[in-house]
Amino acid sequence: MTRLSEDDLIARYFAPLALHPGAHGLKDDAAVLSPLPGESLVVTTDALVAGVHFLPDDEPGLIARKGLRVNLSDLAAKGAVPHGFLLSLALPEGWTQDWLAAFAAGLAADATDFAFPLVGGDTVRTPGPLMLSITAFGLVSGTTVPRRTGAQPGQGLYVTGTIGDGALGLLAHTGRDEDFRSFLSLEQREALIGRYLLPQPRVALATAVKRHAAAAMDISDGFVGDLSKLLAASQVSAEVWLDAVPLSPAARAAVAATPQRLETALTGGDDYALLAALPPELDPSTLSLPLGTRIARIGVLSDGEPAIRLTSGGQPIKLPERLGHEHYSRSAPPVDDRD
Amino acid sequence: MTRLSEDDLIARYFAPLALHPGAHGLKDDAAVLSPLPGESLVVTTDALVAGVHFLPDDEPGLIARKGLRVNLSDLAAKGAVPHGFLLSLALPEGWTQDWLAAFAAGLAADATDFAFPLVGGDTVRTPGPLMLSITAFGLVSGTTVPRRTGAQPGQGLYVTGTIGDGALGLLAHTGRDEDFRSFLSLEQREALIGRYLLPQPRVALATAVKRHAAAAMDISDGFVGDLSKLLAASQVSAEVWLDAVPLSPAARAAVAATPQRLETALTGGDDYALLAALPPELDPSTLSLPLGTRIARIGVLSDGEPAIRLTSGGQPIKLPERLGHEHYSRSAPPVDDRD
Repeated sequence: MTRLSEDDLIARYFAPLALHPGAHGLKDDAAVLSPLPGESLVVTTDALVAGVHFLPDDEPGLIARKGLRVNLSDLAAKGAVPHGFLLSLALPEGWTQDWLAAFAAGLAADATDFAFPLVGGDTVRTPGPLMLSITAFGLVSGTTVPRRTGAQPGQGLYVTGTIGDGALGLLAHTGRDEDFRSFLSLEQREALIGRYLLPQPRVALATAVKRHAAAAMDISDGFVGDLSKLLAASQVSAEVWLDAVPLSPAARAAVAATPQRLETALTGGDDYALLAALPPELDPSTLSLPLGTRIARIGVLSDGEPAIRLTSGGQPIKLPERLGHEHYSRSAPPVDDRD
Repeated sequence: MTRLSEDDLIARYFAPLALHPGAHGLKDDAAVLSPLPGESLVVTTDALVAGVHFLPDDEPGLIARKGLRVNLSDLAAKGAVPHGFLLSLALPEGWTQDWLAAFAAGLAADATDFAFPLVGGDTVRTPGPLMLSITAFGLVSGTTVPRRTGAQPGQGLYVTGTIGDGALGLLAHTGRDEDFRSFLSLEQREALIGRYLLPQPRVALATAVKRHAAAAMDISDGFVGDLSKLLAASQVSAEVWLDAVPLSPAARAAVAATPQRLETALTGGDDYALLAALPPELDPSTLSLPLGTRIARIGVLSDGEPAIRLTSGGQPIKLPERLGHEHYSRSAPPVDDRD
């Protein structure tokens, strides 16, 4: 296997992505970010470890893009427009230039699609599994962003897209639910797996989130668990209308065949949908949102101890006992650990 | 062993350090940085892996502080005043709360000493070795910083502090040079080891670097190798006066006893001194620098192919053949891999 020096590796694979003007072509030890007067930088960081957050054999370009997208999802939830990212990459024994070329190509594709240039980074060796840590920068006007803490009684609870595809996709991807083959078409299984491997961050909604959301976060660790965090941070209670929670056709088919898959959908991770509390007078259908935007009103907030009351047809139904998935203390990879 | 959820872990060990106003007490997924009009943020990131950049059994507080300090050194070299940091931490199997408490205490000590609060981060599990990735933010006025590329013929070449202590300290720390015991006192060995374990970033010089340096970088990968990078970036040549290169008393004693230790001192890593090119008319002794600042003029830049001409008493002497240490392609940890 040909070995490259760190400088050669950076020059070959990463410098072409360093299109941010403050990146100085990665020829220095630091980058310069100069927000305009009146703008703030929103920063977030997420680390992904092979065997924990993705499978070591996943396609390298998809690993790279997932790394970027989980961070882009956090930026969107805070109403921030993508500005650039730092990449810390720990390469394991036996890495190959083919692997790195495919990884860099994935980064380049999403950096272009999301106008999200590389700003800087660090590359090191590790005797352990591959790990990437991405720090994402976004821009907002002013100095405040929608927080988890801003939800109030009377506000409506909204989610984007559909819930549960990522968690069901992980089951399909790892072959841990062979039953899927009997009741999902190949296209449906691939759709779910695609949602797990390649999240769709709601970047196009950042401006609307900044303008309208009283509270917002992305759903990365499971709908029930993440909603619980928002409720706890805001000290409000929520009624959630189960029938209004949006499921994809594939997720609906999986739940129809195996009812306990509803728990997977509601508590599993990797949705990368947005969860927002909006003022009661706001009707999202009146907003000028990007074409194709899907937003569902799934409940309402009220006074009271932070808790989720799940209802269907107006009747309370029991919540799954396992609230969200807390992967930190899990014993068995792989699963996601976004926060 | 007691296990904590990720949220509990963050609340207990890291939230108390999140004194940056934009950190929101680590209760959200992102932080907000709002430079004043006319200010820019300087960002740099460095990752450290157990067994590669430090010894797994090193005192956890020292690991934390070294992680912060190698980043603070990069900020100082770019003339940036510390503003805050992000921490990505991958915890291996078998981590303990005692370890984490000591790690957090080390972070807290340096965060206080350097006015460098925690801004945010991510904590994950890894089946591999412990790894930390720190992203550091500094502030500068304007939008430019001293780069590696700004050196010009006729400028003087300066370093801060002393050269080689970190590399010699690594030998002493790992017991790979037992001879040290025969010609260095316990105090001298401890001084060298201390320089390896706990770099002294030149934070107090940031303002002077920003104001006066034509080019600057920190020396982290070895004096000869890092100077070579600066010369290559600026396309200038350097004459370096060996007798002017500052060595500590302990390093002088080590070199006196074993002449080849001079190569270790000049090419080994972990100095975290600053290297700067200053205009020829500038005399650092006339600047108002912090008390105790040690700056040495060690050579002069000239036209010509980027190369180092080492001289002693005006006579050329042969450079060690091994130019710097390129740890990326190294096969045997532990050594540092800063860039």
